[in-house]
Amino acid sequence: MSGQNSISSKIASAAAAGTRLDPWFDAYADRALGMKQSETRSLFAVANRPEVVSLAGGMPNIVGLPLDFLADMTARLIRERGPQLLQYGGGQGEEELREMILEVMRAEGIRAHVDNIVVTTGSQQALDLVTQIFVNPGDTIVAEAPSYVGALGVFRAYQANVVHVPMDADGMIPQALDETLTRLAAEGKPVKFIYTVPNFHNPGGVCMSDERRPQVVEIARRHHVLILEDNPYGMLGFDDQVMRPLQTYDPDVVVYLGSFSKTFAPGYRVGWALAPHAVTQRLVLANENAVLSPTKVGQLSIAEYLRTYDWMAQIKEYRSMYKGRRDAMVGALAKYLPQCEWNVPEGGFYTWVKIPDGLDAKAMLPRATAKLVAYVSGTAFYMDGQGSDHLRLSYCYPPEESIVEGVRRLAGVIESEQELVGLFGTANLRKRAGTERPGTDVV
Amino acid sequence: MSGQNSISSKIASAAAAGTRLDPWFDAYADRALGMKQSETRSLFAVANRPEVVSLAGGMPNIVGLPLDFLADMTARLIRERGPQLLQYGGGQGEEELREMILEVMRAEGIRAHVDNIVVTTGSQQALDLVTQIFVNPGDTIVAEAPSYVGALGVFRAYQANVVHVPMDADGMIPQALDETLTRLAAEGKPVKFIYTVPNFHNPGGVCMSDERRPQVVEIARRHHVLILEDNPYGMLGFDDQVMRPLQTYDPDVVVYLGSFSKTFAPGYRVGWALAPHAVTQRLVLANENAVLSPTKVGQLSIAEYLRTYDWMAQIKEYRSMYKGRRDAMVGALAKYLPQCEWNVPEGGFYTWVKIPDGLDAKAMLPRATAKLVAYVSGTAFYMDGQGSDHLRLSYCYPPEESIVEGVRRLAGVIESEQELVGLFGTANLRKRAGTERPGTDVV
Repeated sequence: MSGQNSISSKIASAAAAGTRLDPWFDAYADRALGMKQSETRSLFAVANRPEVVSLAGGMPNIVGLPLDFLADMTARLIRERGPQLLQYGGGQGEEELREMILEVMRAEGIRAHVDNIVVTTGSQQALDLVTQIFVNPGDTIVAEAPSYVGALGVFRAYQANVVHVPMDADGMIPQALDETLTRLAAEGKPVKFIYTVPNFHNPGGVCMSDERRPQVVEIARRHHVLILEDNPYGMLGFDDQVMRPLQTYDPDVVVYLGSFSKTFAPGYRVGWALAPHAVTQRLVLANENAVLSPTKVGQLSIAEYLRTYDWMAQIKEYRSMYKGRRDAMVGALAKYLPQCEWNVPEGGFYTWVKIPDGLDAKAMLPRATAKLVAYVSGTAFYMDGQGSDHLRLSYCYPPEESIVEGVRRLAGVIESEQELVGLFGTANLRKRAGTERPGTDVV
Repeated sequence: MSGQNSISSKIASAAAAGTRLDPWFDAYADRALGMKQSETRSLFAVANRPEVVSLAGGMPNIVGLPLDFLADMTARLIRERGPQLLQYGGGQGEEELREMILEVMRAEGIRAHVDNIVVTTGSQQALDLVTQIFVNPGDTIVAEAPSYVGALGVFRAYQANVVHVPMDADGMIPQALDETLTRLAAEGKPVKFIYTVPNFHNPGGVCMSDERRPQVVEIARRHHVLILEDNPYGMLGFDDQVMRPLQTYDPDVVVYLGSFSKTFAPGYRVGWALAPHAVTQRLVLANENAVLSPTKVGQLSIAEYLRTYDWMAQIKEYRSMYKGRRDAMVGALAKYLPQCEWNVPEGGFYTWVKIPDGLDAKAMLPRATAKLVAYVSGTAFYMDGQGSDHLRLSYCYPPEESIVEGVRRLAGVIESEQELVGLFGTANLRKRAGTERPGTDVV
């Protein structure tokens, strides 16, 4: 059971020191050895300590949900439709939910058919299934840089070769995309899809401009490469603005991913993919293999909520609440961290902050948590080691006064780091001492 | 994007005729092309037609669940703990549920630690994750024959080489297992795990004997091969008998899978894996990639049910109800199908029926559904084309009178087939005419 091929052998020998206690180490698949230790759990542990202000997590603030309404609604569903609600369903998801998903997507201008929707266990699972059906080990995925850390984790698990395309304040740069696809074609590297979060980007906070959207779709079509359009935040524009999805420019070259985790609640674990029909069929097969069927309790609860509650009013409340937190964040940044650069996001959960030259966001993190503030190092959002000059601050979960206090603490940490840079030329003492420890890249 | 390697090219050219309408066909991963068209959806469509008696599906009968209790319990949970219930959780699952899972497993004699449990989206996802972390394409899995069709689908999706070991009325045959592992080792084929359903087997209906259990564990340990013990039906012994799990003989060589789908309700999609500690850590990473976290709505609902309801009394009701249906099934078989052979299962959902010589269960299925009765052809439960002389009849979902009526209809179909065999030497007219259509292998 050992040394079944050179890749796993190499990884095995590299990692052997830390794994002597696992008798099954030699049996793992190559992909398992490539799965990176996400620090989600330690983040949860840290974030749950009441004295820490976490500007790290992407958890939505759901305390404003209509709990009495949901309690009554769910009790009624269980009483009236219990044996249906509590049963298995089909691998594509319930049609009554897919009908309501069509209505939700119509708010963004998408016209689609229920047959082209696959309900998944959160849109994370849609990312997993799309990658599963398209990506052989070594296949290439083109992803904007930076990219959502949870997507990069999936791409890594499927042993993809991720090639980054840069973004600016208007999103992914079409010319860079075109050149990258041309170069990869010339190198004989098949590109399986282009990964993008066009709206209120995680972690970048920016939107792809209206001008670029048709350009990106045209480039993808011309190179015959699918686009994976990941859109958890599109409905969370603070000024009620709604951007036109890439999917609407050409439904045949886009797989669109939607989620209820940010516009309603993540605890049901319900998201979806809207795909060209043949791709949908493959996704359903993969979904059946993975989980047999998505949770019917979650699906029928969300369908009933969408049917019987003013869900758009709830989204507008979310927009207003998150806008207040965004204001608290950028106000505190202006007050406490004038030596940094950041953007002012017009929706979504995240600000992307450039820290002063000489500072290393990953190395600084343990010292920040010691000062009771947490963030995510920019390095988490790249596959190629970039990002140590940035950090992601999220304003979604903590209340406004905590956001301000968190930024104030972070300013203290950054000032200390800058003093170290002044004294020693670098603030990354661990790296200088050659004893770097694993970072705390957090989903 | 085409012809990236010989395997996919070959499959592509073989399947090209049916896929001209899919512009992305050349982009799929090899594993996607290996995913077999499960007929779950058409089964659901067939089974939902009220005139058809389906003895095919594995859906539990959950109409006896305490709906008023569950409605009140869930409403209270949402009112009192809504923001927690509706939020993301950790990738390992909630500790309060894992504590209750320990209590459930204690009923089978398992002593374990919460840290060794990973909560999954049904035990199907645990099958998927275990295969994902262990199996490279071409790696070997040893599986008892017949095996659960949903497990075979996962193994196929991960491009495993499945080698069958025969079963008899006492479960997997230890000597055959030992010889198979010895032979595979001699051939230089690493075996990643041994897959078995020791209790109330799907589809076989049998249990591994008390005598064989330690033998199987000893053989696995001696060959340094992990056992994947899949146990959805263990608590459903009709005479309250509880078999000792393989896991208890050596926790270091067994990954044990449990499920609430058959002992409570499948609609939450909550199952679990109990694994050696290092394996657990890998499963958590894979789970985070796949879905971020299992549904907290489902997890906390089940934890509360287990804490506040007499769940063992509910299981005893299930046992009694399924025993009545088992009796209806074997009574009807004795009355209407004396020309067949079958076993009398002492628990679980399934009877495994040998049909008369010359008949083909897969070929017969369309004619059976035309006569308004559905079953699963034995061929679904093998990777190597065996099984056309068997069919699986499930007595879990239809009421007793429907079971009897279904068997009566099936007897009519089998009699017609036997007449054809008498006239033409085979009942498989499609095969004779060279126009075989895809079968209806059903999960």
